[in-house]
Amino acid sequence: MALIGKKRGILERLDAGEVVIGDGGYVIALERRGYVKAGHWTPEAAVEHPEAVRQLHREFLRAGANVLQSFTFYSSDDKLEISGNVLNFTGQQINEAACDIVREIANEGDALVAGCVSQTPCYLDTKNESEVKAIFRKQLDVFIKKDVDFLITEYFEHVEEAAWAVEVLQSSGKPVAATLCMSPEGDQHGVSPGDCAVRLVKAGARIVGVNCHLDPMCGVKTVKLMKEGLEAANLKAHLMLQPLGFHTPECNHGGYLNLPEFPFALESRAITRWDMQKYAREAYNVGIRYIGGCCGFEPYHIRALAEELAPERGFLPPASEKHGLWGTTLATHSKPWVRARANREYWETLLPASGRPKCPSMATPQD
Amino acid sequence: MALIGKKRGILERLDAGEVVIGDGGYVIALERRGYVKAGHWTPEAAVEHPEAVRQLHREFLRAGANVLQSFTFYSSDDKLEISGNVLNFTGQQINEAACDIVREIANEGDALVAGCVSQTPCYLDTKNESEVKAIFRKQLDVFIKKDVDFLITEYFEHVEEAAWAVEVLQSSGKPVAATLCMSPEGDQHGVSPGDCAVRLVKAGARIVGVNCHLDPMCGVKTVKLMKEGLEAANLKAHLMLQPLGFHTPECNHGGYLNLPEFPFALESRAITRWDMQKYAREAYNVGIRYIGGCCGFEPYHIRALAEELAPERGFLPPASEKHGLWGTTLATHSKPWVRARANREYWETLLPASGRPKCPSMATPQD
Amino acid sequence: MALIGKKRGILERLDAGEVVIGDGGYVIALERRGYVKAGHWTPEAAVEHPEAVRQLHREFLRAGANVLQSFTFYSSDDKLEISGNVLNFTGQQINEAACDIVREIANEGDALVAGCVSQTPCYLDTKNESEVKAIFRKQLDVFIKKDVDFLITEYFEHVEEAAWAVEVLQSSGKPVAATLCMSPEGDQHGVSPGDCAVRLVKAGARIVGVNCHLDPMCGVKTVKLMKEGLEAANLKAHLMLQPLGFHTPECNHGGYLNLPEFPFALESRAITRWDMQKYAREAYNVGIRYIGGCCGFEPYHIRALAEELAPERGFLPPASEKHGLWGTTLATHSKPWVRARANREYWETLLPASGRPKCPSMATPQD
Amino acid sequence: MALIGKKRGILERLDAGEVVIGDGGYVIALERRGYVKAGHWTPEAAVEHPEAVRQLHREFLRAGANVLQSFTFYSSDDKLEISGNVLNFTGQQINEAACDIVREIANEGDALVAGCVSQTPCYLDTKNESEVKAIFRKQLDVFIKKDVDFLITEYFEHVEEAAWAVEVLQSSGKPVAATLCMSPEGDQHGVSPGDCAVRLVKAGARIVGVNCHLDPMCGVKTVKLMKEGLEAANLKAHLMLQPLGFHTPECNHGGYLNLPEFPFALESRAITRWDMQKYAREAYNVGIRYIGGCCGFEPYHIRALAEELAPERGFLPPASEKHGLWGTTLATHSKPWVRARANREYWETLLPASGRPKCPSMATPQD
Repeated sequence: MALIGKKRGILERLDAGEVVIGDGGYVIALERRGYVKAGHWTPEAAVEHPEAVRQLHREFLRAGANVLQSFTFYSSDDKLEISGNVLNFTGQQINEAACDIVREIANEGDALVAGCVSQTPCYLDTKNESEVKAIFRKQLDVFIKKDVDFLITEYFEHVEEAAWAVEVLQSSGKPVAATLCMSPEGDQHGVSPGDCAVRLVKAGARIVGVNCHLDPMCGVKTVKLMKEGLEAANLKAHLMLQPLGFHTPECNHGGYLNLPEFPFALESRAITRWDMQKYAREAYNVGIRYIGGCCGFEPYHIRALAEELAPERGFLPPASEKHGLWGTTLATHSKPWVRARANREYWETLLPASGRPKCPSMATPQD
Repeated sequence: MALIGKKRGILERLDAGEVVIGDGGYVIALERRGYVKAGHWTPEAAVEHPEAVRQLHREFLRAGANVLQSFTFYSSDDKLEISGNVLNFTGQQINEAACDIVREIANEGDALVAGCVSQTPCYLDTKNESEVKAIFRKQLDVFIKKDVDFLITEYFEHVEEAAWAVEVLQSSGKPVAATLCMSPEGDQHGVSPGDCAVRLVKAGARIVGVNCHLDPMCGVKTVKLMKEGLEAANLKAHLMLQPLGFHTPECNHGGYLNLPEFPFALESRAITRWDMQKYAREAYNVGIRYIGGCCGFEPYHIRALAEELAPERGFLPPASEKHGLWGTTLATHSKPWVRARANREYWETLLPASGRPKCPSMATPQD
Repeated sequence: MALIGKKRGILERLDAGEVVIGDGGYVIALERRGYVKAGHWTPEAAVEHPEAVRQLHREFLRAGANVLQSFTFYSSDDKLEISGNVLNFTGQQINEAACDIVREIANEGDALVAGCVSQTPCYLDTKNESEVKAIFRKQLDVFIKKDVDFLITEYFEHVEEAAWAVEVLQSSGKPVAATLCMSPEGDQHGVSPGDCAVRLVKAGARIVGVNCHLDPMCGVKTVKLMKEGLEAANLKAHLMLQPLGFHTPECNHGGYLNLPEFPFALESRAITRWDMQKYAREAYNVGIRYIGGCCGFEPYHIRALAEELAPERGFLPPASEKHGLWGTTLATHSKPWVRARANREYWETLLPASGRPKCPSMATPQD
Repeated sequence: MALIGKKRGILERLDAGEVVIGDGGYVIALERRGYVKAGHWTPEAAVEHPEAVRQLHREFLRAGANVLQSFTFYSSDDKLEISGNVLNFTGQQINEAACDIVREIANEGDALVAGCVSQTPCYLDTKNESEVKAIFRKQLDVFIKKDVDFLITEYFEHVEEAAWAVEVLQSSGKPVAATLCMSPEGDQHGVSPGDCAVRLVKAGARIVGVNCHLDPMCGVKTVKLMKEGLEAANLKAHLMLQPLGFHTPECNHGGYLNLPEFPFALESRAITRWDMQKYAREAYNVGIRYIGGCCGFEPYHIRALAEELAPERGFLPPASEKHGLWGTTLATHSKPWVRARANREYWETLLPASGRPKCPSMATPQD
């Protein structure tokens, strides 16, 4: 499916009113596949095991992603130093390897490559703008060298640091999308979603939104508040959401790190493909056009987004060759009670049981 | 890590009292990755997308599997014909491709290759022994040509058909392991686990046990009944278990197909790595030495088996480089309440919440 | 509603094929009303607070009970001595008071009075038949003096002791009903329900069954096993069931005492009136004709039994004046969504939420 | 325990800083006992079955209540007319009978009698102040004639109507306590708790607070908002709370009427005595000194309030003679695992199971 000619850019697509499907979460998925260390969450696998990263990129691509993010989460030098990077790869090595891999796979389809930076330990340690900005600039150098299509700031808990990152990245001339991991209550300093959005756009972001930390329905609410903040300030930006693939109804701004189940017992919170379709629809309805996922989003979750929004987009993703919409492939099953599940109403109204009668349905977030 | 010299065979290992770690489930994992069609569950991806199959094999290998099963589930010609095999690959094409892939990856480590056959539509349609046996013989021809290390009959609901398969496969001179998907109540014809075990051993199986359909704790009970049946009949065989990676406390012999959540809303039933360690220990304690998984077992679940039994085996699997035992990598986390989770007692006693307060904890199996 | 002439006896009614509705549980209800001490469960309130006992009897009568049991649970002298009977009432004082109260209220309607004995500490201490029988004889003397209509042995964990009690009580010439608190696995010595039934009938019981310890659906199963045991032995007796008013799906022969919630946190296990109607129907369908309740049965639960079986009995109980069958009184509610609940299907299919998302749905029984 | 001399009045007690324990819910308790019709909830039992009302009053008194409310809920003539008052008692008849009963029982201990009015159908029909006030005046005439100790307006959904009631009642010179059934979001017209409190105090209420509709923890929050509203307005009043005895975490200002379980399947939501102790402590800690209950509060729940606040009050209620604090009466139980429950930590940390694995833990409120 290699395409001829230059791909249309992220802003070109969004300005035209298209839906852009994002990809899913890398670190949780690769932890479960055996390539990332929980707690550290650093992406040295880009150097150590490129085939594993390549395959996950490819699965998101097949699932319908229009953007593949470089596997460069937490790969600033200060973060790598305090984590389990036992072979002492530099941030530059990892970031370059990640860029090469993601470009290779993006070229297998119609996907753009986004170079990604995330929050730094340096920010909390020093609060020093020039030191923090120097870190982002170093990462940006790789992204420019490897000519990514656009840039994303993600997993920032403080809008101040995110705005610094945006300021650095936008200097490259490439479009910048900025997401925070925050709740409707705002960032960790209590800045409201509306104010965060304004600040990020003023720093130069063309796309703003939310990623990680909380579940999709919570994310839709927060991005809606960002939208209202922008409208009140007479600013314009595209909206983006890449939430958790886990149900977190009891969480607030501390996010899922505060759940007792984080990070090794989140299984029962995983969201079904059907709930993902609801999420895609709700996100679309509030005006979000860049719709993807974060931790917990497996390839089939991304496919669910693409299938829900197929009427708007006009096509299904490649992986839908292996998926009957709303379970229709069950229609020929040998057991009649399984055949009876081959329809939308069945899956849309099902309340799935946990199979864990000795477990609660909600936890008490810790902090 | 390629090894020099011939690998020790499955019986050699089991006769020596070693623990053999099996691999996990292919069709559910590859469905979620976008390569298998639910309801059909046929393995044409071995031809269409070998890189995806290869990568999953590799992940199970890294997780500690000593056996990699050929991705040949349901690939008898009669089954392929009634399923979604739109490109009309023959069983032979698929089985040959699968054998090549699995051998390539097995040679990256110390793993054996098992050629696998599963139940046939023909059995229920005709009950004709010679027709059914002809199907197995055709599959066996490929396994002999590709020189697999041993053979497995898996996912048989009727011991009669499984025994026919064993009779065919053992004629090759290669060791045969025979598993049924049954509950403590026996197979779908009501033959007890003890009687099933006796029948399979008499047919020529050297290893007997259970796979799929029910959760690990239920599987341990069923295999224990098989063991007692063999003892009562003065027969000897090694014991094997490859259960579901989903909690199914309310299921009986109909298995998880009868759950309303099958196959598209099983997320909340997924078992944690910690419960897998409990399973490995209980299986070991009742004398099972071939311990693996089936549908729902992701690579990290296999790693959990290998980690639990590391004291008995004397080593950890490669993927444990990316995993702190019992969560120890959390010990350096920046948030103190996450650091407090870096210990065995925490994870062993945690009762994980589902995050779904509007869902029940048990369903009513249908049939 | 005082009746003229002598009431028809318990056997007269059952022999005629009538349904006899029993009463509910006294000690749990009166504990919550402030008159019984949990853990001791002795009935000195019959002397101390007769008005409270009288009122509860009356409520069961209004709810449709055809039998009112004397409030003489655990009132053997040996039990009273080791319990919280701080005022040192004798068993005789309590039993006489209880008989007077129950007769007074039974005469307000068409109810019979049953004199009740329950298991003794003496049995477990001594296993001495003559000592144990002497205790029952002492209680029987009061029941004869007060001329109860028939006798019940209830809450016996060992059929041996129950049979001794039956032998004593039947010597009076009054009909004896004998219930054990046991599961389908049998009594605490492992005697099967069928064998228990045979033994009790041979000892002289005309009615046999189960009370307390487990929930209604479990009780129906156990009584069915008793019935089959009697049939196999060519014996005849009427069947009786007075189970818990709490859901106990995870309990076995140890009963609800082994639940972590016993006795002070059983609230969320309480059964609704609608589930009680299901119980009444199932009990009737397996041939049980004496249908009542034990701990956890409040007056409205007894009313539910009487309402479910009103077609068979031909009349509704007095308390149904204050109850619309299947919620029909909601039909005039001011809020339309409450009005929509005024029908049988609504209540029959409702799966009530616990309002406790941090609590599990099943516990691990202790022992 | 009849007292000599005049009892100290409600304001005298509260002004002295004493804790006043209220009583529990009458209509739900008497519905279950067979004397009140659900959906109508009118108190004609005061005439029809005074013994039942008397007994429930007495149980609340024994449990520690310092106030017994007249059983006059919904007994305005307009409400009686549209309800199931088949014998056509007038409001006056019912209210007089209720006053006689409650005074008789209050005199058995140190309890005050409160005459109670509740919202009228007339308000929603007409919004006519003089018509509505005429209804309250008619009820007040009875309360004056029967010389109740003080007056309560309860179960008002609109502060406007409650304020009218207060204006009428305070004209008698007797102290008036005013409670609304509202959430932290305010009354049904959206008036905030703080504003409601101010309005009720300005109308003449000396005690303000919340009753019914929502659970205790929600009630504490709402009353805290009322307190803050009064402080901001430089007004003073005593605070009162009589919440539901059911867990309603998913409800908002619509209250428990919107739960699918209302009113016939609320069992599993019932609150334990231990949670009631937590409620009493939290209510006390925010400054509430009149602490009682509403629908779902059984006598043992009121006892739990009195036991929790015994250190502050200096004494235990009569019914504590039949209750070991924190389960201590289990210390002599014959089974060791039950004995192990005889302590505070056990009950305080227990997460009680529902015994209903097929039911959810939260519902979707309807409206």
